[in-house]
Amino acid sequence: MHRAAALPKSIAALLRARSTAGCAMAASTPRVPLPRELLRPLAVPHRLLLGPGPSNVSPRVRAAGGQQILGHMHPEVLQVMDDIKAGIQYAFQTQNRLTLAISGTGHCAMEAALINLLEGNDTMLVGTNGIWGQRAADIARRLGAKVHELLKPPGEYFTLQDIQEGLAQHKPSMLFITHGESSTGVLQPLEGLGELCHRHGCLLLVDAVASLGGAPILMDQQGIDVLYTGSQKALSAPPGSSPISFSERAREKMLRRKTRPPSFYLDMDCLASYWGCSGEPRMYHHTVPISGIFCLREALAILAEQGLENSWEQHQAVCTRLCQGLQDLGLELFVKEEAVRLPTVTTVRVPEGYNWKEITAFLMDKHSIEISGGLGPTAGKVLRIGLMGYNATQDNVDRLLRALRDALQHCQHSRL
Amino acid sequence: MHRAAALPKSIAALLRARSTAGCAMAASTPRVPLPRELLRPLAVPHRLLLGPGPSNVSPRVRAAGGQQILGHMHPEVLQVMDDIKAGIQYAFQTQNRLTLAISGTGHCAMEAALINLLEGNDTMLVGTNGIWGQRAADIARRLGAKVHELLKPPGEYFTLQDIQEGLAQHKPSMLFITHGESSTGVLQPLEGLGELCHRHGCLLLVDAVASLGGAPILMDQQGIDVLYTGSQKALSAPPGSSPISFSERAREKMLRRKTRPPSFYLDMDCLASYWGCSGEPRMYHHTVPISGIFCLREALAILAEQGLENSWEQHQAVCTRLCQGLQDLGLELFVKEEAVRLPTVTTVRVPEGYNWKEITAFLMDKHSIEISGGLGPTAGKVLRIGLMGYNATQDNVDRLLRALRDALQHCQHSRL
Repeated sequence: MHRAAALPKSIAALLRARSTAGCAMAASTPRVPLPRELLRPLAVPHRLLLGPGPSNVSPRVRAAGGQQILGHMHPEVLQVMDDIKAGIQYAFQTQNRLTLAISGTGHCAMEAALINLLEGNDTMLVGTNGIWGQRAADIARRLGAKVHELLKPPGEYFTLQDIQEGLAQHKPSMLFITHGESSTGVLQPLEGLGELCHRHGCLLLVDAVASLGGAPILMDQQGIDVLYTGSQKALSAPPGSSPISFSERAREKMLRRKTRPPSFYLDMDCLASYWGCSGEPRMYHHTVPISGIFCLREALAILAEQGLENSWEQHQAVCTRLCQGLQDLGLELFVKEEAVRLPTVTTVRVPEGYNWKEITAFLMDKHSIEISGGLGPTAGKVLRIGLMGYNATQDNVDRLLRALRDALQHCQHSRL
Repeated sequence: MHRAAALPKSIAALLRARSTAGCAMAASTPRVPLPRELLRPLAVPHRLLLGPGPSNVSPRVRAAGGQQILGHMHPEVLQVMDDIKAGIQYAFQTQNRLTLAISGTGHCAMEAALINLLEGNDTMLVGTNGIWGQRAADIARRLGAKVHELLKPPGEYFTLQDIQEGLAQHKPSMLFITHGESSTGVLQPLEGLGELCHRHGCLLLVDAVASLGGAPILMDQQGIDVLYTGSQKALSAPPGSSPISFSERAREKMLRRKTRPPSFYLDMDCLASYWGCSGEPRMYHHTVPISGIFCLREALAILAEQGLENSWEQHQAVCTRLCQGLQDLGLELFVKEEAVRLPTVTTVRVPEGYNWKEITAFLMDKHSIEISGGLGPTAGKVLRIGLMGYNATQDNVDRLLRALRDALQHCQHSRL
């Protein structure tokens, strides 16, 4: 028995007395039995996670996750929050004051962006060329906003011309676009997009969950108004804490809201105060995931020590090596145009005569390597290989290619 | 430099070429400088956390938090999710199928409950005798629901008579009440409440963030329709993963919704499918905080191994010892009636001639012990002492009482 102390009989008597009084202690006793499965030890096998995320975490980040907890308003935790803000400003290349981490996963950051910026009378234009645009459109519709989707087939990206036509036709107050479309493997070019949006009185919201740290993004220089990412991709921290930043333009739109956002947990006004972004004394809002922000802090520190440009180059180098190796195996890359291939997540067509599930299962069972099948519009069509952050090494590329060669030999001509 | 590999010059050339093409690589380069504060090592001093949460985590839970990550759809992670469901069913004493952990802190679980159960035409009755009722009322109003508050002074609780009058007058579809009012130190009696609510066609929603594991609560036997808690209180896991459960009655109300909840992240229909509560194949919804759920699993296992009744008795025993010790120091307990004192968080009046901030600062600086001041309606009036989960030991009571005696000697007659 853990933590249990022998209790004096007087306590049991006290509890019975309180029970009789019918006040604090229920008259009844537990009937739902002990869950037997919980009495087994926790088993966490080691795997090489080369899917589209999460990626493996480094020993340094793991150590941070195993630290003892502190109080959420202790000076050391507030310092960690300040460090995180500075780290995000560097990683995003922004000087936005309203920069912080959402206490949730990437989806939660997406929701935080939309819930604070959209009201019922807003129109949002969504670039949908994979699952993330669909997701943003879904959330915006739940919030009562008017949503128009610009559609492109999976594997393609939006040109400035596409966007310009959409802006002119629908006159949205916000454009949503995905920088790293991890369901298709496309890297959306961002140059000129901010300027174009601003000319049309529209905010630019960019999802960089799968790309941040792995491909160049320069929030201020590119005129991005809202940018967010996840912790479990190229930052290689556990999921659950998601960097986000808002430009002055975005902040002003939030200040002009007529209604309060339909969430307290994600209310950016409260979060800004809690994270010390407003220049006023910090106000308790919720309890941040302490272990999670220790990990995020270390992950951002690792990126800062390496340097953004080195990180971009590293991801590009391993992606290039991977793409070459895949082609050498006779496989066909899903994204034709090299310049718009996402360096962090590579998509490759499922070769004819193979069942994708058998390939991923073989890699997992025989090599303890995870890669993924498609998602949403690419389901059944592609395999997705992620080389992100701590996992973005040439050794991992070579290990994967060897394993994949093995899989292709063993899974051929399977039943479909 | 961490992880950085020497990159062939050809990569740099490739990147420059892509930059010129204006496609994937921005023409500009990073200008926001390295954040110096991130280059310092992470410092996490050891503290005894005897505030109202978070509490210290046990070595076993810390080890779980430092484990390597797995994919969010790996069988081992799905097993951990199943273990957690069983652990919550035991801790809550429920057989509800719709039982899972929200990927957020306790506030997020509160929001998940309200966002799924309330629509614009709903009326909610809120028992407000501290900050948590105020918070629930705030969220419900954001969601467009009609909110009536039953008010009681801090330190008091609601009788069945109070509730009955409120139900008869306002005819709400849901009653919100806080089991462990951590801002005031009150344990709300729950006996008869479920039956009363159901007689009035009303659902009973109970916040047990500060009480679960520390005071008896029997979800099914007490007729509670929605129950949630946090991970960082008596469960002694890091914050960021919050158990929640819904009765069949609550589930049926959600099924009758005319509008979709204004959140994708917290949509219980999607979460039920992801957590395997619906009896159908699991659907990916978001990436659960992997490290967080490893920790939560271990925390629930510790509670199961100890046994619920032992845990309740242990918390009661240390609370009794603490209350006696505080009175022996000449201090006055804030909650007069012994039977409704929350065993996990004890409130004591700030003694005359003392500044509460000096006492908490003294304990922190000289003894590395955290206790807290008041919150919301008790701000400035009380000190709050939490003895929860891993920290609920007689040794900690004695250590705190010694430190407090020291503080009372040194901080007396301070300027107010």
